[in-house]
Amino acid sequence: MKNDIPQYAIGVDYGTNSVRALIVNTLDGAEIATARYNYKRGEEGVLLDANDPNLARQCPSDYILGFIESVSKAVNAAKGQLDFDPQRVVGIGIDTTGSTPLPVNRDGLALGMLDEFKEDLAAQAWLWKDHTAHAEAAEITDAAIRGGHPYLTKCGGTYSSEWYWAKILRCMRTAPHVARSTYSWVELADFVPAYITGNTDPETMSRCVCAAGHKAMYHEVWAGLPSTEFLDGLEAGLSRFRYTQKAVPSNQQAGRLSSKVAEHVGLPEGIPVAVGALDAHMGAVGAGVKTGTLVKIIGTSTCDCLVSPLDQPLPDIPGMCGIVPESILPNMYGLEAGQSAVGDIFNWFVNNFSPYKDVESDKAHAMLTEVATLLNPGESGLLALDWNNGNRTILTDPLLTGLLLGQSLYTTPAEIYRALIEATAFGALTIIQRVEEFGVMVDRVICCGGIADKNPLVMQIYADVLNRPINISRSAQACALGSAILGAVVGGAHDSVELAQLAMTGFKQELYKPVPANVNVYQRLFMLYKQLHDSFGVKETTLSLFSVMKELIAIREEARYSESRST
Amino acid sequence: MKNDIPQYAIGVDYGTNSVRALIVNTLDGAEIATARYNYKRGEEGVLLDANDPNLARQCPSDYILGFIESVSKAVNAAKGQLDFDPQRVVGIGIDTTGSTPLPVNRDGLALGMLDEFKEDLAAQAWLWKDHTAHAEAAEITDAAIRGGHPYLTKCGGTYSSEWYWAKILRCMRTAPHVARSTYSWVELADFVPAYITGNTDPETMSRCVCAAGHKAMYHEVWAGLPSTEFLDGLEAGLSRFRYTQKAVPSNQQAGRLSSKVAEHVGLPEGIPVAVGALDAHMGAVGAGVKTGTLVKIIGTSTCDCLVSPLDQPLPDIPGMCGIVPESILPNMYGLEAGQSAVGDIFNWFVNNFSPYKDVESDKAHAMLTEVATLLNPGESGLLALDWNNGNRTILTDPLLTGLLLGQSLYTTPAEIYRALIEATAFGALTIIQRVEEFGVMVDRVICCGGIADKNPLVMQIYADVLNRPINISRSAQACALGSAILGAVVGGAHDSVELAQLAMTGFKQELYKPVPANVNVYQRLFMLYKQLHDSFGVKETTLSLFSVMKELIAIREEARYSESRST
Repeated sequence: MKNDIPQYAIGVDYGTNSVRALIVNTLDGAEIATARYNYKRGEEGVLLDANDPNLARQCPSDYILGFIESVSKAVNAAKGQLDFDPQRVVGIGIDTTGSTPLPVNRDGLALGMLDEFKEDLAAQAWLWKDHTAHAEAAEITDAAIRGGHPYLTKCGGTYSSEWYWAKILRCMRTAPHVARSTYSWVELADFVPAYITGNTDPETMSRCVCAAGHKAMYHEVWAGLPSTEFLDGLEAGLSRFRYTQKAVPSNQQAGRLSSKVAEHVGLPEGIPVAVGALDAHMGAVGAGVKTGTLVKIIGTSTCDCLVSPLDQPLPDIPGMCGIVPESILPNMYGLEAGQSAVGDIFNWFVNNFSPYKDVESDKAHAMLTEVATLLNPGESGLLALDWNNGNRTILTDPLLTGLLLGQSLYTTPAEIYRALIEATAFGALTIIQRVEEFGVMVDRVICCGGIADKNPLVMQIYADVLNRPINISRSAQACALGSAILGAVVGGAHDSVELAQLAMTGFKQELYKPVPANVNVYQRLFMLYKQLHDSFGVKETTLSLFSVMKELIAIREEARYSESRST
Repeated sequence: MKNDIPQYAIGVDYGTNSVRALIVNTLDGAEIATARYNYKRGEEGVLLDANDPNLARQCPSDYILGFIESVSKAVNAAKGQLDFDPQRVVGIGIDTTGSTPLPVNRDGLALGMLDEFKEDLAAQAWLWKDHTAHAEAAEITDAAIRGGHPYLTKCGGTYSSEWYWAKILRCMRTAPHVARSTYSWVELADFVPAYITGNTDPETMSRCVCAAGHKAMYHEVWAGLPSTEFLDGLEAGLSRFRYTQKAVPSNQQAGRLSSKVAEHVGLPEGIPVAVGALDAHMGAVGAGVKTGTLVKIIGTSTCDCLVSPLDQPLPDIPGMCGIVPESILPNMYGLEAGQSAVGDIFNWFVNNFSPYKDVESDKAHAMLTEVATLLNPGESGLLALDWNNGNRTILTDPLLTGLLLGQSLYTTPAEIYRALIEATAFGALTIIQRVEEFGVMVDRVICCGGIADKNPLVMQIYADVLNRPINISRSAQACALGSAILGAVVGGAHDSVELAQLAMTGFKQELYKPVPANVNVYQRLFMLYKQLHDSFGVKETTLSLFSVMKELIAIREEARYSESRST
């Protein structure tokens, strides 16, 4: 830290349904005020189309209102705190969902906010979970592979319908009038910093390497975005959206807070604003990611973040959704992986198959957890695959589904609930094994998100399955904290992101340690999981599965007579 | 039929929890009276041991009381009917669960009824579902295979813990005092006819070929029961229980109703009593089994019965639980197969995972069925294996478990319910394909049992999956009716079982015909089922399962846009 006078940084985290602003003390990361703005337009902030379940858009005006409302409310709340003074806010950081690109005009104004396009879904922001472009994504994958291009080597080998170019291509084909009026497509993570600093010119505005590298096939090895020829080969004119500025990491400034916006939020003008980033990556920063430490942000799905020093060679890793220099920390490769459904699987089970009558979802989770906690690992005889929403890492295959086996006539809901938790833990271990195969070692895991905070059974199972100690991020708002850390760095409160992390992040008291007896059982179960994983998920794999059910029965019989308990 | 004066036959059906007596008109099978006796001893008639969930015994006195109470009640009820007169009862048939052997003394008295053994569980009847002898069953299988003996070739290749010799062996080892006092072990199907006719001498009493052939490795090819050497090789002295009389089919007389019993039940003495049989086999007779027609008795589990002419060569069929000359019809091989759990799987799901709150089990079945009926075949994207209780035919492997795959985050309880029904239908088709491979053709299916009567969705799915028309047995008490038919035959009312069946059996009005569009989808799903079946169930099978989930998704997408409905 630079000095002992308290200074503050603001992190603003754009989620799927709301924006959250967080004001933290740069000395110790103390969170002194927070405020939330729920998007006004659409259903819980998402514009939908009754005729197309794949469509999910967002209204750009909500982003601007969201910044002003959440930050001004947080600033007002902070004013009640000892020592806080808006003048002591040294920097602002922004993180957002992504890939959430929106079309802008020559001035960098969002098309969706212009009268002409206000009602046009194609002119709004294309939210990360919009899957209308699945055909275009497949086309991009095909073109890259067939053309022998390297573009997919840094993002797992398969382009996603959630990503930048697939969405732009889709817009050109299905809403050409919008595409014609579009000067550039801007990721939400770049749109907000541009707007609040006034640096909105699409030619010169900051483009964050985080979104560009993970979602738009940007890499210095091939001089930035994919070539004009490649893009125009997909659709004539697509290359018009190939911006040429160098994408930059978030420890750089996007600009300074404009007087207009500063006035609205009750802050002095000129506060440094960091280049934006994707939410999960800032979550990793806020949770304390560093070499050897995996951060898992566990929610409805899971995002895994890792870093690896830039000065050590790192091969492409098949199935990783991204390996991008400086996308998380400066001087480090940022690695992103993920599981397409985690909390969503538990919710699906509870909402459809809970045995508890007239009980709310949260309470049903708690009740099932209580019973499941009493089970020994392996005691249910069940084994599941966590693919109800496909598999992101390491198979990058949405055309996969859930699997449950080992059911008897006595199998209980709590047993299945636990098996589903275990399945997600096995999925997590599969990711760790993949990165370790390629030299990125994982000694420790930090979890954050609601499930990590609320469900000790899930965390203990993860510790046992992963066979690594698990810490829980101290902040319940790791993404916003990560952004605030970047704000503190661009504001000069710390000399580096690492030093800022050291000062501003921490763990909760709970440490989940692997229990050796449980680890042993889970190693046996994971062998079986891996057999199912490879049989159903990896092309041209032929394994004998005859022993799977028999092994599960053998493990079950042993576990029933075992004394060890998982928690 | 012999003449136009109404004559009557009585069938007495010994189930797991009760005995049912049925009085039918031999001219047309009209059921004029029925009465039930619930066993008094144990839990719902079954003696249990809190320390051993595998144990299931039954008190022999319940069998005797059961006959007297149910038959006398039925006779009294029939007296109200026009034309009925006890003098017009021409014959009695008996069917029972099995293998349910009980130890008797030199006089053929049940040990469990003697004061000395009244409280001794080992001296009671060892109910079919007693699985205490699983180690002994495995030992018998091993010994037969290792010794190169043919004994298992007629019963699927694996001896079951439910069967005769395994239970006797178990008794010798765990209750030697009982074994020492035992002169012979008698199947329940032989015990009842012996008791009511007074022909109880173990050396001369009728032993039915049905139980002997299917459960005790009796076959004329090896001169009856397994050799003395084989039995004594298992345990010195076991051969003492090798009875030597020829086992006979049920169209022969076991004797005539004794005066003592006749008096108790209000019938004239001397009425011919048929040799006993196993319940499912009599169910097949009562449902109308004949060449080319498969009878499925669908309850908590399923028993499949087929016949094939004795004068046509029939090879051993791997996995069939039995191929026994004249065990069902005279001059026919009787073939038995089965699925270890059918209704039990549906009940397990409803009792644990029903979405309907405060609704009784029956009603929940009806509600799930209603929703499941609205689905197209394949529309759920789900596929299940019906192995929650292991697999009887064709794998004869209890160490198998359930499997469900294809779950998304939107999978509903009704979809899973339907997938479980379909799984049992695929299991049924696997049995049909196996027998047809060996030359026993199946053109038509007759179903009986509660599910067949009550659930048209299950029956339509079976018709579509099996791609064969399905009739429902007219009688809801096919087993008792089958016994009555044998009673009519031994009483001289018909010249043969076939002629008696012609007169006395029939179908309900409903005929379930395969719907071609559904048949096509199910043929594709069955290919996938078969891949899972063989991968998990057949040793040394290695298949690529990579396409299974993808095929299911493809079928699902087609089915969602299809117009055809399953019912």
